[in-house]
Amino acid sequence: MITLASDFGSPYPAAMKGVILQRTDCRLVDVAHDFPRQDVRAAAFWLRETLPYFPSATHLVVVDPGVGTDRNALVVRAGEHALVGPDNGVLLPAARRLAGDADLEYYVIDERRLEPVEPAGAQRSATADSTDPEDATAGPASNTFHGRDVFAPAAAAVHDTALETLGDLEWLSPLEDEPIDLVLPRASLTGERATGEVLVVDDFGNVVTNVPGEFLDGREQIVTNGESVPVGETFAAVPTGERLATVGSHGYVELDVNQERGDEAFDLAAGDRVVLETTAPADCGSDLSDGE
Amino acid sequence: MITLASDFGSPYPAAMKGVILQRTDCRLVDVAHDFPRQDVRAAAFWLRETLPYFPSATHLVVVDPGVGTDRNALVVRAGEHALVGPDNGVLLPAARRLAGDADLEYYVIDERRLEPVEPAGAQRSATADSTDPEDATAGPASNTFHGRDVFAPAAAAVHDTALETLGDLEWLSPLEDEPIDLVLPRASLTGERATGEVLVVDDFGNVVTNVPGEFLDGREQIVTNGESVPVGETFAAVPTGERLATVGSHGYVELDVNQERGDEAFDLAAGDRVVLETTAPADCGSDLSDGE
Amino acid sequence: MITLASDFGSPYPAAMKGVILQRTDCRLVDVAHDFPRQDVRAAAFWLRETLPYFPSATHLVVVDPGVGTDRNALVVRAGEHALVGPDNGVLLPAARRLAGDADLEYYVIDERRLEPVEPAGAQRSATADSTDPEDATAGPASNTFHGRDVFAPAAAAVHDTALETLGDLEWLSPLEDEPIDLVLPRASLTGERATGEVLVVDDFGNVVTNVPGEFLDGREQIVTNGESVPVGETFAAVPTGERLATVGSHGYVELDVNQERGDEAFDLAAGDRVVLETTAPADCGSDLSDGE
Repeated sequence: MITLASDFGSPYPAAMKGVILQRTDCRLVDVAHDFPRQDVRAAAFWLRETLPYFPSATHLVVVDPGVGTDRNALVVRAGEHALVGPDNGVLLPAARRLAGDADLEYYVIDERRLEPVEPAGAQRSATADSTDPEDATAGPASNTFHGRDVFAPAAAAVHDTALETLGDLEWLSPLEDEPIDLVLPRASLTGERATGEVLVVDDFGNVVTNVPGEFLDGREQIVTNGESVPVGETFAAVPTGERLATVGSHGYVELDVNQERGDEAFDLAAGDRVVLETTAPADCGSDLSDGE
Repeated sequence: MITLASDFGSPYPAAMKGVILQRTDCRLVDVAHDFPRQDVRAAAFWLRETLPYFPSATHLVVVDPGVGTDRNALVVRAGEHALVGPDNGVLLPAARRLAGDADLEYYVIDERRLEPVEPAGAQRSATADSTDPEDATAGPASNTFHGRDVFAPAAAAVHDTALETLGDLEWLSPLEDEPIDLVLPRASLTGERATGEVLVVDDFGNVVTNVPGEFLDGREQIVTNGESVPVGETFAAVPTGERLATVGSHGYVELDVNQERGDEAFDLAAGDRVVLETTAPADCGSDLSDGE
Repeated sequence: MITLASDFGSPYPAAMKGVILQRTDCRLVDVAHDFPRQDVRAAAFWLRETLPYFPSATHLVVVDPGVGTDRNALVVRAGEHALVGPDNGVLLPAARRLAGDADLEYYVIDERRLEPVEPAGAQRSATADSTDPEDATAGPASNTFHGRDVFAPAAAAVHDTALETLGDLEWLSPLEDEPIDLVLPRASLTGERATGEVLVVDDFGNVVTNVPGEFLDGREQIVTNGESVPVGETFAAVPTGERLATVGSHGYVELDVNQERGDEAFDLAAGDRVVLETTAPADCGSDLSDGE
């Protein structure tokens, strides 16, 4: 099984699928192709929250603002899983969740030694002096679409290789430096106060913070931005259109609205700072409002 | 085969797919994950219009504004098909279309008896006193994501069970009350006049009413909202950009525009009242306009 | 394997998948269902750029502004591939790329001889005098959804037929006239100047022109619209937010912005005229600006 995740939109993922199916016969499962463009941190979060639900698989990940530069292309073995993608931090939170730090191996892809991608018609259309757009065609190694030309063929080959023998593949070599890491920001907790930030806003508009859900244990109200918000076990704990704090499906405190968008009601976006308190501050609601 | 339908957007459906593939090896087919948010009626319509084209399958449906409340989680056997989803009416129009009322069975899921969903890394990250976001993780039973934690594992198990033995599954019990029903609204027809409403607007902007297509039989013009509109067998019966009434692929009267959006041209949205007449009313066009 | 491409959005493609899976057991791969509505030229471009990466397959293509008219429905054999879709030009650029002009065969579908599509419940709901929306249903041959009722069953049957025996299928006959062609526009090149147009803007906002990539060979700057733009091998050759010209993954000159949208920065859309020059013209920048 190969899963695919990218910020490509459509239809570029189809070219990756074609390349894979040209080389191996395996199940393909889309994780998402609408990750926020070039947003390595958001993709890293979603992969960490999604891939652990899959059985053993090869995970192809292409969120790659540095495509065509000398950033490394990686294969990461994470326990019974393999991840294939750029060395920009996007793979590591998921890899650590899948396997723990003790069971990770990092390999660098030598793209010159991969079997080149050759689309049908590439030879026919390679007449250089033509101005017929039928005749223009990318060579086998594009500088801007490594998803199709490097990562897809690498994922197909990894899928066909036993994970314990990855090191035998001639186009892989052990990564000598540390991989680029991307540690998702940690919340600061004291007994009565959590200072964190918004990790992502999901498609429902739920505001996922990095404050661990246990912060809400035994509490019926919290204060954020000077305003009191009820704590509920699920969205429907409050009437439609009302705000609440809850422990979301990722295990973090979420700021949500029952059947409506929490990001709009709380005026929060990914990266924004969030302060949660268990008792209301006196006389400072408007100051906090200005400060957010 | 398991089909998946939800209002989840992306990437939550991938977690459901991972859970299913962790448990069973079967074909997965997406019906849609962009149903209008929390809109049980729209989802019920689209499922009724889509699922009957599939061969025998398990259909996983999650449009669930009451997630986490005490609403029942259902498995419905509909002839050679099974549907898995919340007891809020979303399943019934499709179930009746698939099998007729005489061949339906309703079961309630006891979610505490399902094998829990355990993502990779759940044990490692369960240290409660950490503030490391790597260490937060949902327990096996989220209150807000039953698609992943209840309906996906139930669908996988139903897929692996012969439909005639569903009643033997220990985590299913017969539904004692009637399921919550959601009857799509009926149009009122007299010879010359149909009063109905807009069931949905599709992605092309076609306005699908609940007036049966036979209302247009033998007619060349109809009047709606005081204006005369030609009846055509297909979009191209009128020039590009022109309005028409036609019998759409669902069998209902649609108000469309050739190659453009009917909802904008007719100023109609889901739920709006629609009156269709076969002769133009005298002197009341503007009144009708005001009233729509 | 059957690939599917359309401008249908959601959930109509699911009905096509159901019809196919009702008739044959094969892998389904989505190319895209968000092609620009009714835009035959854009779809033709994307199919030509995507399908050549696939192994031998049947490609179902439905971008069909003339649905329900007397335009032909085609099966095209292109080497080891088959394409199924309307005779409006959308299939030909991909077919020629897949197989060359010498290895193409064109057949017309006689839709009356295809086995009709019969959704579950069609008989039950065919009571003509009912006003119950449960009872309205499309007959087996809709005038507005040939993707479901003609092309999907045709694709399933083609998938089950050896390509060399397509001519034996009783519902296919050789196309007697030439198929409708759609030649993508050619750029005009002189040594120092290329005059072309924008073929498409992709989901990243990259502006894909029809000027062959070789025009940039050995050049460090080009002039477009009176302004000088650096030539780079990849997006990251310029700082984030800066403009560049590069040879994109399709082999053409693209006008892009590193990590942002080129269409907005260059104010260009599909179909717009583009002039690229290798030296800056004297005193005519503003004239060119007016002319774009």
